[in-house]
Amino acid sequence: MNERQQAAHDARPSGASVREQVFGGAKGQPAAPGGGDPFLAPFFATAIEHVWGGVWNRPGLELKYRSLVVVSVLAATGHREELKTHLRGALNLGWTVDELREALLQIAPYAGFSTANEALQALSGIVTQG
Amino acid sequence: MNERQQAAHDARPSGASVREQVFGGAKGQPAAPGGGDPFLAPFFATAIEHVWGGVWNRPGLELKYRSLVVVSVLAATGHREELKTHLRGALNLGWTVDELREALLQIAPYAGFSTANEALQALSGIVTQG
Amino acid sequence: MNERQQAAHDARPSGASVREQVFGGAKGQPAAPGGGDPFLAPFFATAIEHVWGGVWNRPGLELKYRSLVVVSVLAATGHREELKTHLRGALNLGWTVDELREALLQIAPYAGFSTANEALQALSGIVTQG
Amino acid sequence: MNERQQAAHDARPSGASVREQVFGGAKGQPAAPGGGDPFLAPFFATAIEHVWGGVWNRPGLELKYRSLVVVSVLAATGHREELKTHLRGALNLGWTVDELREALLQIAPYAGFSTANEALQALSGIVTQG
Amino acid sequence: MNERQQAAHDARPSGASVREQVFGGAKGQPAAPGGGDPFLAPFFATAIEHVWGGVWNRPGLELKYRSLVVVSVLAATGHREELKTHLRGALNLGWTVDELREALLQIAPYAGFSTANEALQALSGIVTQG
Amino acid sequence: MNERQQAAHDARPSGASVREQVFGGAKGQPAAPGGGDPFLAPFFATAIEHVWGGVWNRPGLELKYRSLVVVSVLAATGHREELKTHLRGALNLGWTVDELREALLQIAPYAGFSTANEALQALSGIVTQG
Repeated sequence: MNERQQAAHDARPSGASVREQVFGGAKGQPAAPGGGDPFLAPFFATAIEHVWGGVWNRPGLELKYRSLVVVSVLAATGHREELKTHLRGALNLGWTVDELREALLQIAPYAGFSTANEALQALSGIVTQG
Repeated sequence: MNERQQAAHDARPSGASVREQVFGGAKGQPAAPGGGDPFLAPFFATAIEHVWGGVWNRPGLELKYRSLVVVSVLAATGHREELKTHLRGALNLGWTVDELREALLQIAPYAGFSTANEALQALSGIVTQG
Repeated sequence: MNERQQAAHDARPSGASVREQVFGGAKGQPAAPGGGDPFLAPFFATAIEHVWGGVWNRPGLELKYRSLVVVSVLAATGHREELKTHLRGALNLGWTVDELREALLQIAPYAGFSTANEALQALSGIVTQG
Repeated sequence: MNERQQAAHDARPSGASVREQVFGGAKGQPAAPGGGDPFLAPFFATAIEHVWGGVWNRPGLELKYRSLVVVSVLAATGHREELKTHLRGALNLGWTVDELREALLQIAPYAGFSTANEALQALSGIVTQG
Repeated sequence: MNERQQAAHDARPSGASVREQVFGGAKGQPAAPGGGDPFLAPFFATAIEHVWGGVWNRPGLELKYRSLVVVSVLAATGHREELKTHLRGALNLGWTVDELREALLQIAPYAGFSTANEALQALSGIVTQG
Repeated sequence: MNERQQAAHDARPSGASVREQVFGGAKGQPAAPGGGDPFLAPFFATAIEHVWGGVWNRPGLELKYRSLVVVSVLAATGHREELKTHLRGALNLGWTVDELREALLQIAPYAGFSTANEALQALSGIVTQG
């Protein structure tokens, strides 16, 4: 990196603050990642530094759209628990329940209707259980 | 479906017209799907009727966002040729090259950096070759 | 489509009737798809119109063989709940329990023994619980 | 295994002979697996002994149906070269080109239309090139 | 196989004995595979003969490293129950808990952080529950 | 992080230096990542900082074993080009060709024989072409 790139890099928000922005909001602080299991702590420290502080905090694409990308990927690859977390984040960033239902329906012919069904059930659970 | 739902259903644009809206535009007509191979014709007829006329033409989420969902899914699942087609559609619908590069970078920690690398090379090929 | 193709298309059974043929039979009506959750209703309406009415009702391959194809795909891709539904359909269409056990054993070296194990446990559950 | 099971086991045809039955036929001997690359020889010896001699030669399901299962799995998981080999085997065992086209169309809503498209192109290539 | 290769082949330990070596040890005999379900017995007989007796018992790579390969593959492909079994085998073969945690962290950027998270939770469960 | 953890963190080698250690060695400098395509530069900068500097440079597991984990994951998930790069790294770190062949054979029953076949062909290509 040249100096200007380094400065831009250093000016990016921290991973932890971006994560709070995505998951936090009206409902208050996001839960401690990993439920506070000390065995998993190195994993979550790595994720916050290198996922949230590595890609989520980049300029060039709004957080709201980054969230839609991540929801689509997690739905297509079947990571149900992580999908639920990011569906809550997507609602927090301004997507509506109906838009997210359409987004998950849109993946059906590409990732398979069974995959979409499972993702929609995750969203239905969030809508029902709050 | 009740009568009102049926009417809403019938009012949706045809699959073929939505497909043209996504892939067409300034560069003119989209290529015949499947390059006109008669053996594959039943497949592409099915896809236009049931993918484009089944989910793409639904109300409730803008085409531009549906396109981002499909790009994310195809990138995450490694369908390189179809991804290229939909990256061109995403550009046609108003996403910029830089936004799409960020979107593909965003999938890296979720679908793997190798997967993101392959998707970014597809985008780089489109940018270079026009 | 030309006129003759359109006529053949219109003569195909509805998605709902093919679904009933696959899942119904001696045990009576298939359960309402999605357990009647209204939030998921648009998904299941789409699936019946575009999956059952888009590919299952096509001529050219017997329902019994289409069922084996779907069972194989769902087993290989690990969609356990949907697999159970389609294993019941396969039994309804005339496959025997022993043939289905062999079919799932056959996928082991191609989709992995762990994948086959999980699919066989789904079949074992159906056989035990009726 | 008890004595009777052991006898049944020993009576099963060898892996090599089943492989020849699936791939051989009117067109003569199947190609040497792996094109004769000595580095890969241990792999192909293992595959013939443990895939062909482990599951393909089992009683309880006709070879023709085992072939359909394998074609479905390879199509769904995107192993194009191996799929081509097994599509040729499926034709050799009595499936028609039109039935196989329907089988690959049937996987579209379950494994994704892009996946089905890629599998259908493999079949189209075989039909065109003989 | 020539005579020498055949002799080397015959001298390899049986699948059952290698399986016992991997899963057994201080904690005694491994559980009967499949929990003794008679319906699944043909599957587990096949697995012991053709997986344990087909690849695990080959010379040329230490069991400890074969175990790390299998743990990596099962973690990356999300087979949680089988992963737990093989994590226990890996501990039995001499890998430490901390090394396995690092191994699962290492897969994060390649197979996705959600995949790694799920695998690490499996390991955490083993560590906590013994 | 507390002070001690922060100090340990800061003492870890840089991502770039670990990457050089894995891919470099007797054959000299590793190629510029991404072949120097400026469009892909932000991706490779991210990968070096957050993959190589995020997990590869952690203490607690030898580089040689991290390399085996990554080779296993890339083989199982079918990323052929990236697999080739990491097979070269594995050879550089001291694994022999025969050990790597066994490792790839070991994945066959877990990730599928077709997947293993494709990975072995990648290794064969490296051995033949140097």
